[in-house]
Amino acid sequence: MARINVSIGFDRKLYRQDLMGSRAHADMLHAVGLLTADDLAAIQRGLAQIEQEISDGRFVFKDEHEDIHMNIEARLREIIGEPAGRLHTARSRNDQVALDMKLWTRDACDQIDGDLQALQRALITTAEAHADAILPGLTHLQPAQPVTFGHHLLAYVEMLGRDRGRFADCRRRLNESPLGAAALAGTPYAIDRTMTAKALGFERPMANSMDAVASRDHVQEFLAAATITGTHLSRFAEEIVLWMSNQYRFIRLSDAFTTGSSIMPQKKNPDAAELVRAKVGRLLGAFSSLTVMLKGLALTYSKDMQDDKEPAFEAMETLSLCLAATTGMVGDLTINREAMRRAAEGGFITATDLADYLVLELGLPFREAHHITGALVKRAEDLGVGLADLSDAELAAAHPRLTGAARAWLTVEGSVARRSSEGGTAPDQVRHQIARAKERFL
Amino acid sequence: MARINVSIGFDRKLYRQDLMGSRAHADMLHAVGLLTADDLAAIQRGLAQIEQEISDGRFVFKDEHEDIHMNIEARLREIIGEPAGRLHTARSRNDQVALDMKLWTRDACDQIDGDLQALQRALITTAEAHADAILPGLTHLQPAQPVTFGHHLLAYVEMLGRDRGRFADCRRRLNESPLGAAALAGTPYAIDRTMTAKALGFERPMANSMDAVASRDHVQEFLAAATITGTHLSRFAEEIVLWMSNQYRFIRLSDAFTTGSSIMPQKKNPDAAELVRAKVGRLLGAFSSLTVMLKGLALTYSKDMQDDKEPAFEAMETLSLCLAATTGMVGDLTINREAMRRAAEGGFITATDLADYLVLELGLPFREAHHITGALVKRAEDLGVGLADLSDAELAAAHPRLTGAARAWLTVEGSVARRSSEGGTAPDQVRHQIARAKERFL
Amino acid sequence: MARINVSIGFDRKLYRQDLMGSRAHADMLHAVGLLTADDLAAIQRGLAQIEQEISDGRFVFKDEHEDIHMNIEARLREIIGEPAGRLHTARSRNDQVALDMKLWTRDACDQIDGDLQALQRALITTAEAHADAILPGLTHLQPAQPVTFGHHLLAYVEMLGRDRGRFADCRRRLNESPLGAAALAGTPYAIDRTMTAKALGFERPMANSMDAVASRDHVQEFLAAATITGTHLSRFAEEIVLWMSNQYRFIRLSDAFTTGSSIMPQKKNPDAAELVRAKVGRLLGAFSSLTVMLKGLALTYSKDMQDDKEPAFEAMETLSLCLAATTGMVGDLTINREAMRRAAEGGFITATDLADYLVLELGLPFREAHHITGALVKRAEDLGVGLADLSDAELAAAHPRLTGAARAWLTVEGSVARRSSEGGTAPDQVRHQIARAKERFL
Amino acid sequence: MARINVSIGFDRKLYRQDLMGSRAHADMLHAVGLLTADDLAAIQRGLAQIEQEISDGRFVFKDEHEDIHMNIEARLREIIGEPAGRLHTARSRNDQVALDMKLWTRDACDQIDGDLQALQRALITTAEAHADAILPGLTHLQPAQPVTFGHHLLAYVEMLGRDRGRFADCRRRLNESPLGAAALAGTPYAIDRTMTAKALGFERPMANSMDAVASRDHVQEFLAAATITGTHLSRFAEEIVLWMSNQYRFIRLSDAFTTGSSIMPQKKNPDAAELVRAKVGRLLGAFSSLTVMLKGLALTYSKDMQDDKEPAFEAMETLSLCLAATTGMVGDLTINREAMRRAAEGGFITATDLADYLVLELGLPFREAHHITGALVKRAEDLGVGLADLSDAELAAAHPRLTGAARAWLTVEGSVARRSSEGGTAPDQVRHQIARAKERFL
Repeated sequence: MARINVSIGFDRKLYRQDLMGSRAHADMLHAVGLLTADDLAAIQRGLAQIEQEISDGRFVFKDEHEDIHMNIEARLREIIGEPAGRLHTARSRNDQVALDMKLWTRDACDQIDGDLQALQRALITTAEAHADAILPGLTHLQPAQPVTFGHHLLAYVEMLGRDRGRFADCRRRLNESPLGAAALAGTPYAIDRTMTAKALGFERPMANSMDAVASRDHVQEFLAAATITGTHLSRFAEEIVLWMSNQYRFIRLSDAFTTGSSIMPQKKNPDAAELVRAKVGRLLGAFSSLTVMLKGLALTYSKDMQDDKEPAFEAMETLSLCLAATTGMVGDLTINREAMRRAAEGGFITATDLADYLVLELGLPFREAHHITGALVKRAEDLGVGLADLSDAELAAAHPRLTGAARAWLTVEGSVARRSSEGGTAPDQVRHQIARAKERFL
Repeated sequence: MARINVSIGFDRKLYRQDLMGSRAHADMLHAVGLLTADDLAAIQRGLAQIEQEISDGRFVFKDEHEDIHMNIEARLREIIGEPAGRLHTARSRNDQVALDMKLWTRDACDQIDGDLQALQRALITTAEAHADAILPGLTHLQPAQPVTFGHHLLAYVEMLGRDRGRFADCRRRLNESPLGAAALAGTPYAIDRTMTAKALGFERPMANSMDAVASRDHVQEFLAAATITGTHLSRFAEEIVLWMSNQYRFIRLSDAFTTGSSIMPQKKNPDAAELVRAKVGRLLGAFSSLTVMLKGLALTYSKDMQDDKEPAFEAMETLSLCLAATTGMVGDLTINREAMRRAAEGGFITATDLADYLVLELGLPFREAHHITGALVKRAEDLGVGLADLSDAELAAAHPRLTGAARAWLTVEGSVARRSSEGGTAPDQVRHQIARAKERFL
Repeated sequence: MARINVSIGFDRKLYRQDLMGSRAHADMLHAVGLLTADDLAAIQRGLAQIEQEISDGRFVFKDEHEDIHMNIEARLREIIGEPAGRLHTARSRNDQVALDMKLWTRDACDQIDGDLQALQRALITTAEAHADAILPGLTHLQPAQPVTFGHHLLAYVEMLGRDRGRFADCRRRLNESPLGAAALAGTPYAIDRTMTAKALGFERPMANSMDAVASRDHVQEFLAAATITGTHLSRFAEEIVLWMSNQYRFIRLSDAFTTGSSIMPQKKNPDAAELVRAKVGRLLGAFSSLTVMLKGLALTYSKDMQDDKEPAFEAMETLSLCLAATTGMVGDLTINREAMRRAAEGGFITATDLADYLVLELGLPFREAHHITGALVKRAEDLGVGLADLSDAELAAAHPRLTGAARAWLTVEGSVARRSSEGGTAPDQVRHQIARAKERFL
Repeated sequence: MARINVSIGFDRKLYRQDLMGSRAHADMLHAVGLLTADDLAAIQRGLAQIEQEISDGRFVFKDEHEDIHMNIEARLREIIGEPAGRLHTARSRNDQVALDMKLWTRDACDQIDGDLQALQRALITTAEAHADAILPGLTHLQPAQPVTFGHHLLAYVEMLGRDRGRFADCRRRLNESPLGAAALAGTPYAIDRTMTAKALGFERPMANSMDAVASRDHVQEFLAAATITGTHLSRFAEEIVLWMSNQYRFIRLSDAFTTGSSIMPQKKNPDAAELVRAKVGRLLGAFSSLTVMLKGLALTYSKDMQDDKEPAFEAMETLSLCLAATTGMVGDLTINREAMRRAAEGGFITATDLADYLVLELGLPFREAHHITGALVKRAEDLGVGLADLSDAELAAAHPRLTGAARAWLTVEGSVARRSSEGGTAPDQVRHQIARAKERFL
């Protein structure tokens, strides 16, 4: 029983939150006349000493006190004696548990926001350096149209921007104080919930005391946001693994983010990227775990809810680590422009440009232009040459007004340069979006 | 192959979104000079006819055209001929697919918001009718303190309020237009992405064309919000099942929401509640499904992403159905005040009140008050009586200043009435919160 | 990078498996002439010393050696020098990693099998003690027919029996040796894979070297079996929580498995059961995590696969703990026969018996019997009495041949005693099944 | 309510199972004297007619009869009148529901086993045709050692073999009959459960009636096995997508399994493989859904359990479809031996062979051989040549006894040929394993 019940092994992480909550509660009790100035001073002194002991690693956590709340309460009694008992006036372990986890989740949102911003910064910096490096833009892992590396990286900046929005929304939504809910029904003491709420940085008290002690949707929301972010990171990690592979060689990572083999020293296994790719599983696992735990729980608090902590703590650490590793890789990578460009030239990748030429320069209807282009691609493939290598006669055979002038549209540089519609891959447009991204995100 | 590849069986649901997108795109092409007025008129007429045919059930969907986009395109060509081909200028199936699913998700958010509000309305109405009905407030499924039924229902109003917030945030975040991303890289045509964005009710165009065709985090976010809402519904459903059970009999549901047995006609199986309780599994399943699908997908579009639709469609229908069923049950239920009140009297449920009395009236420190109360509860239990049945002598033995006057604090009515702190269970406070909830949510 | 890459923090758990594998490999190398007797002796001595150091807690694990394999290898070199290098002839870290995890999973299956059997034993013992204690058998949480407590517990003995079967199948299926697969392609050395397989208790070598280093379906299968077992435990835990509640009071648990409240000392919060109920979430989370990780991984080994360990280790500990806690609760519980029996008498629970009487004694068709019974139940409910309290006239009014003799069929004791079909709830049948269960499972 | 409660829309799939169960039950009732020969004949006639009506598509399913059981029962009454009512003697909808789902799951296991075998057959056939085609064997998506294509495919044959084992175990474990459990407690009628069990192909009756109606772990197990199989398919699908990509071009798929683009007719989007890769998400979703649904359900039957069907049905169809699509692709693919071999020559892929040469031919210790090889690889990389291109002087500089004779070990053909240890990649070994696989699986 002790083994399954005791939580001090993991909830000790919440000590700062617990102490912060107790301080605010004590101040409020004094302000409304439920605690004398002397008792308040003793309590605040005791709590400060406890904080010091814990941060110094001198605090002795005891399983017999089960959780962080009781460990702190017991120690406070040792230090200041009888006034320790008054701290719990108009408060219950239930609202304390809820409060600590809310404060933790809020801190976690802030931490992850910083990590996400750091990754955005690294991506933007690298995108700026390679705003005009050309690589194949893929659909179905097949070359579709050439794009610029800067443009490709900015796609992730956008995804991460939405991820930050999700954490910000989670933070804002949870930012109401459960304190004052007491065990579950509120309290007969004339407490001031708004005062503790403000002191702890909350917008307001929660409107319903049963909800306050029974709900953990903010932890679910945090884990959902983490899972979505992890999905984005897994996609980028997959690309790094591909780009590092012998078939691509688009990028190199230093030994800081790869491991080799004693026998094949040139081998660069992208271990960090592979681990980032894997970890979204852990995040989804945490969200699933919490959802299963909460499913079908009658109100209000049940001990099941203690099991919100380990998945949340682990997910937070996992995500923060993945973000740091990815930021590190982005800062570390060197690109192989030649390999990228060479790959971008395969697969008749500028076929669409030829069609666009037929529409924009020769005024053909879109579908006819498509049809002619398809026939030319087929012809070139049969001949084993590129589109630009087709003779004038071949071109004219496809359409009488089609001449060698079209070849100017078939370079990959031209292709990307023309795609300057808003949000498009043209280097100028990419630089414009980089400037905007800096304003929006950094 | 056809069986696994063809999507028209399910993506036909998107026909309204697809037509809306084509209309906006055609208007824009005309505005920027890429489409003549005649062609525009033909296209708009053709699209209107198609909408009519589909809503009339006369449209013949064909597997050979694979998906909704190609089915509509092919039909448009049949109706208006050559100008149909011009509609696809500066557009690709990729941004069309992304657009339709965005519009669908936005509509789904709006639909669910309405469903959630309807449930809040039902809960508030029922809470108002029973603001002072007393039942045991439970922790660990054990009686802890008496609460009012109105208060209990308002806890769910709060949860659902946060759920609405999540859908609203999802809607707001996704509300940028992918149109104009074309295949993945933008387009050389001088299109006006802001014009189509505005026409379709978006805030702005998405800032990166690769992100536009590659991302589905808005569907993940929708499914995460649905899962969290489903978790809340499962908890309420569990309570309905409990309250309907022979051991509780707190509420009755009519035959509209229960099934009986031919042999035990009095039996009321709460089938609807049980199904609502179960369905959170489907919602979590949908979120998991989408996350697995997206995991490790290199940019940009891959066919894997076609598998976003069925989970999203099913989740939407499931959640909407669960909300309707729950709203129906709340409107249908009749409460058994007597059974609730009787249950609230067991388990020394006002023990905390005795402690509060000792603190507030006799000025004892909180922990001492707790200690005395614990001793009295133990004494009462040994005697097999309630706290209020202890003699004056028993009370005095526990503390010299404790007299029969304390008994006034031991009624469940007194207990709830005193818990009038903000968000507490006192009927007056509940009525105050009902008024606020009406302003906030209805 | 180090933080995300280093695994020695968790894979040190595998040290016994790693050493066992090295010993078997060394013996085989010697047997086939790839290792001298002296080198073998040195290696075995060194490995024995390392095992002692680790089990004594004296071994210094170093992050710089990343994982358990390299930590042991490095230490072996310190102890025995040059021959350490020969141990890795015809072996690669890849097959070593695969081997260790297979051995661990096999051990885990054995451990869980023992835990499951212990729980079956506790359930059978308690079932035997209460083979004839009557409680309401529920469907939809509504009373349906009376059952015996022994019968109810045996239902779980069956579920757990299937759970044991799943772990046994998992163990049997995985019991092929990966050793000899080397990096991924096999080896040019004339090794004897059957010899190492037998030495390590495997049935045979795995048939394909790429499969050997790339597959983790045995870990998935282990986690799936764990999740299913956890589902069963969550159902039993829910019942314990219900049975402990004020509304039921069917059982009591001692303070060893409950926690109280300082103020309500009589309160028994079933914390252990609640935590067991919650933990199935963690198990599903682990299975999901592993499945996501493996999704879409190209052959053969990728670093992603290092992330199989923590979910598996945590799931194993969680499940073992839940089984121990549940076994403890079963051994600890005392039942309240009176409360159970009283509850079994509500809800016209023997209505089916009356119908059976009409069929078996009066020879009525089944559906007519059902119809008559339904009418009588309705009549009794209207009168506010039980079925047995209906007058002879009431009975005769329902069917002319129905007399007071039927009342003998309406007692709960009679009801359960008659349900003596194979696997039915009659005490004699329960005792028969207990005897069979002992043979099958203990 | 109707919308959420009615199941006939999906459980009609169970009609064959339902009719089969009714037939067996009727025969048994007659055998034990509970049904006359005339009634039996009428019932069997009626059931046969119903089967015909349903398979002809003439049966009118009605929502008012809710589920398949009641639809059939009602129709039987229409056809044969009063004897229809006698069919339900000693039976309840609860054990009927359990029975139908057991029979369905058993059929599903058989279906999937056949699908899996067909895929194994296709893989073995293709492996045999390409037992000696050489491609790079990858770890971390980096070239590690050359392997043969036959060997690579056989790895999947092994995985699928274990998958078949899991479905076989699932089938065997579930193969006990719930019939005779009645509502939940067994029955007072003198039924013969063994007779119905045998008639329906079950090994024996289930040992506990409450377990019989309350358990769905066989559906969980089926879905777990499906998820694991889906994981394997997703890995193979990923490889097909990679092999089809412009960077690899290892294989070609015909238009039957790819889609093109009107403008890039040479483009082959591997749509079928991408969809197979995605679908493991749906399978994990189904398993999660069922686990959440069952979590914390008190015994015995609750309506929640109706929600086992749709996830199971969808998963079965999804998996069967994925297996068929994969089998189709394996049969369809043509390999590009040249591209494979060329890719296998990059990345110093035979470095391990050089080390093996040093050990086996020159007698160096393994670690020293590794060290020398690493130095030579580094040297070759610096020079921008392959290992075989290093001069005799370069070789001698690395180790005095290392001569040009070593070059014979550096060809990829030699490399794979030497890896002839059991389960290794040598063509002869592969052919041997193909012969064994045919015996074991086909």
